[in-house]
Amino acid sequence: MNIQTPPPNPPRQPTRTPATGDVTVGPRAGGRKVYQDGTLFPELRVPFRQVDLHPSAGEPPVTLYDPSGPYTDPDAAIDIARGLPALRAGWIARRGDCAVVDAPRQVRPEDNGGASGAALAPAFDNGGRIVRRGRPGRPVTQLEYARAGIVTEEMEYVAIRENQRRVATEQPLRDGEDFGASIPDFVTPEFVRDEIARGRAVLPANINHPELEPMIIGRNFLVKINANIGNSAVLGHVADEVDKMVWATRWGADTVMDLSTGRNIHNIRDWIVRNSPVPIGTVPIYQALEKVGGVAEDLTWEVFRDTLIEQAEQGVDYFTIHAGVRLAYVPLTARRVTGIVSRGGSIMAKWCLAHHRESFLYEKFAEICAIMREYDVSFSLGDGLRPGSIADANDAAQFAELRTLGELTRVAWDHGCQVMIEGPGHVPMHKIKANMDEQLAHCGEAPFYTLGPLTTDIAPGYDHITSAIGAAMIGWFGTAMLCYVTPKEHLGLPDRDDVKTGVITYKLAAHAADLAKGHPAARLHDDAVSRARFEFRWEDQFNLGLDPETARCFHDETLPKEAHKTAHFCSMCGPKFCSMKISQDIRDAARGQNDGAGMSAAEITAGLAEMGEKFRAAGSAIDVAVTE
Amino acid sequence: MNIQTPPPNPPRQPTRTPATGDVTVGPRAGGRKVYQDGTLFPELRVPFRQVDLHPSAGEPPVTLYDPSGPYTDPDAAIDIARGLPALRAGWIARRGDCAVVDAPRQVRPEDNGGASGAALAPAFDNGGRIVRRGRPGRPVTQLEYARAGIVTEEMEYVAIRENQRRVATEQPLRDGEDFGASIPDFVTPEFVRDEIARGRAVLPANINHPELEPMIIGRNFLVKINANIGNSAVLGHVADEVDKMVWATRWGADTVMDLSTGRNIHNIRDWIVRNSPVPIGTVPIYQALEKVGGVAEDLTWEVFRDTLIEQAEQGVDYFTIHAGVRLAYVPLTARRVTGIVSRGGSIMAKWCLAHHRESFLYEKFAEICAIMREYDVSFSLGDGLRPGSIADANDAAQFAELRTLGELTRVAWDHGCQVMIEGPGHVPMHKIKANMDEQLAHCGEAPFYTLGPLTTDIAPGYDHITSAIGAAMIGWFGTAMLCYVTPKEHLGLPDRDDVKTGVITYKLAAHAADLAKGHPAARLHDDAVSRARFEFRWEDQFNLGLDPETARCFHDETLPKEAHKTAHFCSMCGPKFCSMKISQDIRDAARGQNDGAGMSAAEITAGLAEMGEKFRAAGSAIDVAVTE
Repeated sequence: MNIQTPPPNPPRQPTRTPATGDVTVGPRAGGRKVYQDGTLFPELRVPFRQVDLHPSAGEPPVTLYDPSGPYTDPDAAIDIARGLPALRAGWIARRGDCAVVDAPRQVRPEDNGGASGAALAPAFDNGGRIVRRGRPGRPVTQLEYARAGIVTEEMEYVAIRENQRRVATEQPLRDGEDFGASIPDFVTPEFVRDEIARGRAVLPANINHPELEPMIIGRNFLVKINANIGNSAVLGHVADEVDKMVWATRWGADTVMDLSTGRNIHNIRDWIVRNSPVPIGTVPIYQALEKVGGVAEDLTWEVFRDTLIEQAEQGVDYFTIHAGVRLAYVPLTARRVTGIVSRGGSIMAKWCLAHHRESFLYEKFAEICAIMREYDVSFSLGDGLRPGSIADANDAAQFAELRTLGELTRVAWDHGCQVMIEGPGHVPMHKIKANMDEQLAHCGEAPFYTLGPLTTDIAPGYDHITSAIGAAMIGWFGTAMLCYVTPKEHLGLPDRDDVKTGVITYKLAAHAADLAKGHPAARLHDDAVSRARFEFRWEDQFNLGLDPETARCFHDETLPKEAHKTAHFCSMCGPKFCSMKISQDIRDAARGQNDGAGMSAAEITAGLAEMGEKFRAAGSAIDVAVTE
Repeated sequence: MNIQTPPPNPPRQPTRTPATGDVTVGPRAGGRKVYQDGTLFPELRVPFRQVDLHPSAGEPPVTLYDPSGPYTDPDAAIDIARGLPALRAGWIARRGDCAVVDAPRQVRPEDNGGASGAALAPAFDNGGRIVRRGRPGRPVTQLEYARAGIVTEEMEYVAIRENQRRVATEQPLRDGEDFGASIPDFVTPEFVRDEIARGRAVLPANINHPELEPMIIGRNFLVKINANIGNSAVLGHVADEVDKMVWATRWGADTVMDLSTGRNIHNIRDWIVRNSPVPIGTVPIYQALEKVGGVAEDLTWEVFRDTLIEQAEQGVDYFTIHAGVRLAYVPLTARRVTGIVSRGGSIMAKWCLAHHRESFLYEKFAEICAIMREYDVSFSLGDGLRPGSIADANDAAQFAELRTLGELTRVAWDHGCQVMIEGPGHVPMHKIKANMDEQLAHCGEAPFYTLGPLTTDIAPGYDHITSAIGAAMIGWFGTAMLCYVTPKEHLGLPDRDDVKTGVITYKLAAHAADLAKGHPAARLHDDAVSRARFEFRWEDQFNLGLDPETARCFHDETLPKEAHKTAHFCSMCGPKFCSMKISQDIRDAARGQNDGAGMSAAEITAGLAEMGEKFRAAGSAIDVAVTE
């Protein structure tokens, strides 16, 4: 099987320029974009979403983590034909460890599945693109910098992000069970460096993705979530593909994987990466398979190698590599109920069997490392043998692969590459902890990145929920990133609503995990919502939630009037039965008796006793305010 | 405050007869109603939903638990003006331990909140209603029968239900972690009797609810779910209220609580109970509060006592009684973020403080027991001091009440009353197990019945999911029944879609718990779905799921043609990339080489090696079927 030689002509120019209006822009309801500057690197501008509360709350604004990028900044000028600002370009240039590639790889027709004419997606071309590659003998990856004791701009950036503008002199509440994690009260750039140096965290940041707003994935940081985009069908407009990424990050996705198959993979990916504020992950074997006409047995190391370079030079931040699907493991899946459910895993399994050879991904792993290192593309070591049904959970095939991934982690680290490990899948609750224990035991504390897991198979249509249960639990146990699942899992491609539902579901699962781990920032968010709820600051409750528009809309279905937004009840119980209203009455009455907030329980008891006396004396009318 | 004396005239006759068409009838998609007869009591007809699979599966039909009653039986004649068949009436009469009440309590205007004329809901009257009460000195409750060593019809009925027509000679797979539960391979009527006698299970079955299809709530049985219905607004048509119950049970609710406030509480409840195949629960303090014009301080023991009798004679199967909200505990909530979130709890707290007296529910508890015993109304001891925010979880107020509920459990048992214990609430994951441990330690293994718990406060609009996480976990730890939460939690009243979403969400959470506990029936369901999925039996996959219509609809959004229902791919990956298709190819090829199913891994390896040879020899064409 020969790779076609590159044609002499450049790809056709786009016949239609996607307009800015094609992607979702504008602030999220109820919050505004704010920035915090760097200290070590004053030019840093780290974004957050700030929710200002009603003045009656007497509380400071709440700062929330925000991966949505400039799209939600009303001051940003968005033009997806130009791409996002290359905010990292100066840092990379200053470090001087990379060189501009004089003759970068040119796009070829097979990169786009042979599409041409009207079927070929327009190329991205903003007239200024350069491709960088690391200089030999110089640090390139965040891991290499970290080991050399160097704190990069990216490291300070993520330290600021993770603290969410909390003040370092406050002693935060630490109430959780973290199973031996090492989450600090406040994240310093030095802590970030140390975590990366140990391999315990990954900062996915291809030197060719300067538009990236850096983020970090690790057990000792906020639990992150990934959303999948991409399609398997005919050409969609490139703006639609970009907007899937924009939409997913708008709602909270920390990274996005482009899992496109079919045609135009290259051109679509260019548009996505150039416009993405979050790390982009891919599974290069998909595009390699397209290049060999969909015939798994025709895959070769050369086609794959070329695809790695193609995608690395575009700026993809992490690659899923199924190097753990070894020939000897494939028969271990023979008795499974659902065989091999990973696309990449099944492709490699087929290749191994057809050739009766060891996987070329495994055999050529060192060469893969050498390529990825040059661009700081991180590994996501794929779980090609993950269980796709409850029956297959924690079986020999799955754990054999996991041990191999642990072995490969050391090889990658030796080459200076960042590594995270992918995980399951479908796992009943009682088997989830063992997955975390095994991964910690074999993979040197490299971050774990799971798909759910789904805790039962019986609810197609609701697998965002069956998996949220497992995801929250495995996040609590130490998993660093959770790959979302939408309601369409097992049934078809998700639409925009499904993507949003999946993202919100996984944001709440990740937060439930942070909370249970005792992350110092987590409780602040829950408490702010609950105070707003108790004080009937409805707008604050909505705005502090993960989906303000939906919360407001649900409330308004039965109590739409504006006056109801200050009502001390809702339609669930009505004014007479609202327990919070009654609780407020009790508390206000007790405070009215004495000095207000800060009373001891004994004082409140005494106050409440007096209140009882007064009530009876006054004839027990409920609506009479108790006054001194 | 005086209770109005009953008027001499009976309530007005209904001016409009609800038509059968007003409730949802007809079989669920993809399954059919089947019945299994009793053995000890041959007249029993225990319902199930049977899903027949495609012949190519070579598998027997799958039998699923079914609480939906005659509404999903195409052979049943539904007329909600007549009510359901009184299938238990003969059993109750045969036992001879109850007497017909000559002068049952008559309905009074205050029972319906003073509604009259067009505002008064029609009374239910099918012309044949009798009211029973237990004879002194005779067993009445299932607990009393159980302790006397008597197996009732109800006990055999639930034993049959719990086995889901599994055959007792098969050795089931037991793969789980049950934290010391005692789930048998097969449930016998004697096991049911013993569990009830120990207080470890509750069979809610008011002698005045003969239409009930009996069910059991206990740690050693399938985890059950409750749906809440009722409203706080103006009169809805009674058929709408009945249909809320029918709708909830159609999707899987095992019990239904009618939490209505406002007017027409009595008449609406009559229609619901007479037409309910599942146990109905209520919170009698709500109606008592309506009778005193909404003034909590005006509640009296006499009004409450009268309300208990009123509701017990209607046939309510369990009462939530907030007898644990003691005067001394109320100040313990003073520092809480969300105070007292239970309606009933806040009402009683207000009463205690106003009177500076111990709760009359606590002081009169023995009298409450005596009343409830006479009708076999079960206790659901209310968690009036449950935490309504993460910050308040597991605090002193909550556990003080729990210990009192444990004390009251013994009193109730001494009176022959069945008891379950209500639980939280809002609890972060790391504090959930402690709730189960405390409840087991203090409440004598009475069944636990929790509301969620919600594992974070930050997602209003998605609290069915935040709570599904906690519910699945606490069900795994031993909780017997999970009270559902809908997307509208904290925001307003749920509509029909919300009710369905809440029910399906809680069914999957309950099943995830059964699975993790190693319940012998649970895995069979997951495995049947997964085999259907792997074999591309799409209709079977849909029909075996908790919501076949939604699964089919989601699939059809992107692959609607009928031919696609046998397609070996879906739109997620398409035909080239479908991992299950590739897995099938691998497995079929290996089996084609040898003898088919049942090969050892070594044989498959050898087979796969030969297959590799053949592939290369044949030129590696992917779509050529491998033949011997």
